[in-house]
Amino acid sequence: MNRQRCLALDAEDPLAPLRAQFELPEGVIYLDGNSLGVLPRATASRVQQVVAEEWGRDLIRSWNTAGWIHMPQRLGDKIAALIGANAGEVVVADSTSVNLFKVLSAALNLVRERAPQRTVIVSERHNFPTDLYIAESLARERGLELRLVDADAIAGQLDDTLAVLMLTHVNYRTGRMHAMDELTAAAHAAGALVVWDLAHSAGAVPVSLGAADFAVGCGYKYLNGGPGAPAFAWAHPRHTAHMDTKQLWQPLSGWMGHAAPFEFVPHYQPAAGVSRFVCGTPPVLAMAALECGIDSVLAAEPLGGMAALRRKSLALTELFIQLVEERCAGQGLALQTPRDLQWRGSQVSFSREDGGYAIVQALIERGVIGDFRAPDLLRFGFTPLYTRFVDVWDAVEHLVQVMKSGEWREARFNQRAAVT
Amino acid sequence: MNRQRCLALDAEDPLAPLRAQFELPEGVIYLDGNSLGVLPRATASRVQQVVAEEWGRDLIRSWNTAGWIHMPQRLGDKIAALIGANAGEVVVADSTSVNLFKVLSAALNLVRERAPQRTVIVSERHNFPTDLYIAESLARERGLELRLVDADAIAGQLDDTLAVLMLTHVNYRTGRMHAMDELTAAAHAAGALVVWDLAHSAGAVPVSLGAADFAVGCGYKYLNGGPGAPAFAWAHPRHTAHMDTKQLWQPLSGWMGHAAPFEFVPHYQPAAGVSRFVCGTPPVLAMAALECGIDSVLAAEPLGGMAALRRKSLALTELFIQLVEERCAGQGLALQTPRDLQWRGSQVSFSREDGGYAIVQALIERGVIGDFRAPDLLRFGFTPLYTRFVDVWDAVEHLVQVMKSGEWREARFNQRAAVT
Repeated sequence: MNRQRCLALDAEDPLAPLRAQFELPEGVIYLDGNSLGVLPRATASRVQQVVAEEWGRDLIRSWNTAGWIHMPQRLGDKIAALIGANAGEVVVADSTSVNLFKVLSAALNLVRERAPQRTVIVSERHNFPTDLYIAESLARERGLELRLVDADAIAGQLDDTLAVLMLTHVNYRTGRMHAMDELTAAAHAAGALVVWDLAHSAGAVPVSLGAADFAVGCGYKYLNGGPGAPAFAWAHPRHTAHMDTKQLWQPLSGWMGHAAPFEFVPHYQPAAGVSRFVCGTPPVLAMAALECGIDSVLAAEPLGGMAALRRKSLALTELFIQLVEERCAGQGLALQTPRDLQWRGSQVSFSREDGGYAIVQALIERGVIGDFRAPDLLRFGFTPLYTRFVDVWDAVEHLVQVMKSGEWREARFNQRAAVT
Repeated sequence: MNRQRCLALDAEDPLAPLRAQFELPEGVIYLDGNSLGVLPRATASRVQQVVAEEWGRDLIRSWNTAGWIHMPQRLGDKIAALIGANAGEVVVADSTSVNLFKVLSAALNLVRERAPQRTVIVSERHNFPTDLYIAESLARERGLELRLVDADAIAGQLDDTLAVLMLTHVNYRTGRMHAMDELTAAAHAAGALVVWDLAHSAGAVPVSLGAADFAVGCGYKYLNGGPGAPAFAWAHPRHTAHMDTKQLWQPLSGWMGHAAPFEFVPHYQPAAGVSRFVCGTPPVLAMAALECGIDSVLAAEPLGGMAALRRKSLALTELFIQLVEERCAGQGLALQTPRDLQWRGSQVSFSREDGGYAIVQALIERGVIGDFRAPDLLRFGFTPLYTRFVDVWDAVEHLVQVMKSGEWREARFNQRAAVT
């Protein structure tokens, strides 16, 4: 393998034209799309149109004339196509944390009605913290136990005390992917419900929600929706078919999830279907940006869609692992991402006993943007929509130089920023 | 009074220059800023800068370099100046509905610790529905009673069963304003806590939170933050001084309200002060637009600030009431907004036995944008930042013509839109 061969891989890549959809800054190799996706070219003008025309000129009328009021459902339908769900099963609203609160509450309410002796929420010890904090909060409020276990120990926890199994499909630290179908089936066989967080899956890897109960996901990572973009929530239609709030109840009962918000009646009656997971007024500017981001992923559909993106993602991560292990051998970098393609998301993480933060900073100064996750992880995301094989080569070349030169030992690379 | 005199009032108005801050569409008299504020001229370029430069060019680094991470607090400090609070007491996050869930939960948790025999939440029957829906949800989850009473009956409800008095300062239907100081003091004297919704107050009327416990408010009405703009939450510092979560606990414990979000520790420890009311990742584009909106209100500070805005607001509403009652006498329009200036917000509502919806639609076709609230209210908001006295004259002139011509009886004005 050499740089020339990487350029050839790009020339042969059927997904290569998708890169032209994005504004990519000169001199940057961006391997952090798993934290914040890049800017689609369409976004700036679309946001400007919403600001100047829909808001500025048409004002309040745009709730009807520009279809603002239907954004949670319209964007939800688009995301559904990316996560193996059906139209009408997803809404866009709020943040991932808030949506997790909604769906985990709904799941726990279902269990409380049907099997109150089930009092344990199981999750992974290294799940993304906000998921654990939300689950901790609900466990506290309801007197339940939140049990955190290592990924390999999950299967052993599925017994008749289990209320809800709550997992993130692709781990934010290691990029390790859970067997969604198997774990959903096993939890159901044990009589429990399952909630999946698709933050590192939507737009990154194919997802088959199948018979799962609820899911949430993030708009600003692989969906390229912009910083702090709204998130989404999915519920299996067997749950949202019930209009009886004893059968499905989520506590963030805001007016936009009401069956008739503009009747202004004093009592809450949830909207039909998944729309009851909408709460407050949709954040229109942010929704418009997110829609452009979702569209940038949907643009892969004629080229093979998520399956094609997945093939390229694995080729990119495989190449990165191979090059780092060959060219940085003896530099103390230990792969933390599964070698087995089946269990690998769209990122690669290496641990290093010390210096991880500084090495990432030294790379950033060279224009190779990955990130560091305490205590010891160097994390690199590979978004097949816009990452080229030659970017992988060049990123590793920089890493080789950073390690061999020892430049990362300079003091300035150790000054922690507020957000690391 | 005549049109000439109104033009003279505008010529004398010291706040008149503030209107130049806004993009106001030609041919429109906008009396719906209490539903969606207009577009500040600064917003489009600021949003564009955030999209193209901070996101597109600087990408993930902008969390530090552009200060994205501090937006909830920075915008909160600016809002604090408009609602009689201090810097460090307000954060911007999520929607009004979600923030109300947080602060009402926190208030109920405090009462549960200190006086568990208090099991009643009192609110106003005609409070904005989303407030009632959120309170209904929390009452349901906790086995409490949500008691809805007429505004005049509130004082009679303040007894030793009261847990929380939850009110919106200015009623969205009538524009009637509660005596915030008196009701806060009376509820405290009864041993209860008080939660205020400032949706129709922030940027519209002076607010003195004083000793109140919690408050929330809306970013897209008088703060001109754009459709679905983020909302805010305020907590009295005597509550947020406690780090013991038994003393203050809100259940939407997302990572951005954690004491150390980038430590990625598995257990939740709330941030100091009001920052614990932040939950998920801040919606940066929407926050940037909101900041421009807040700044458009703060621009009144050198001209007398909220006190000056209040004087003009009352002059506008007083003129509107006088002209409608004189010029539309006998047309069935009955004032629902308090005549006493002390209890009037920044809007005027008239009821009419029938035809209210169609009359509003006929006005909208003429470029006079107000709104209708079922079953019978014609609602007109007067934002002193950009509404002129001559706009009041012209709006009433159109209303006179609509009523006298009977044009509102045309069938097309009765076709209800999705959002009314």
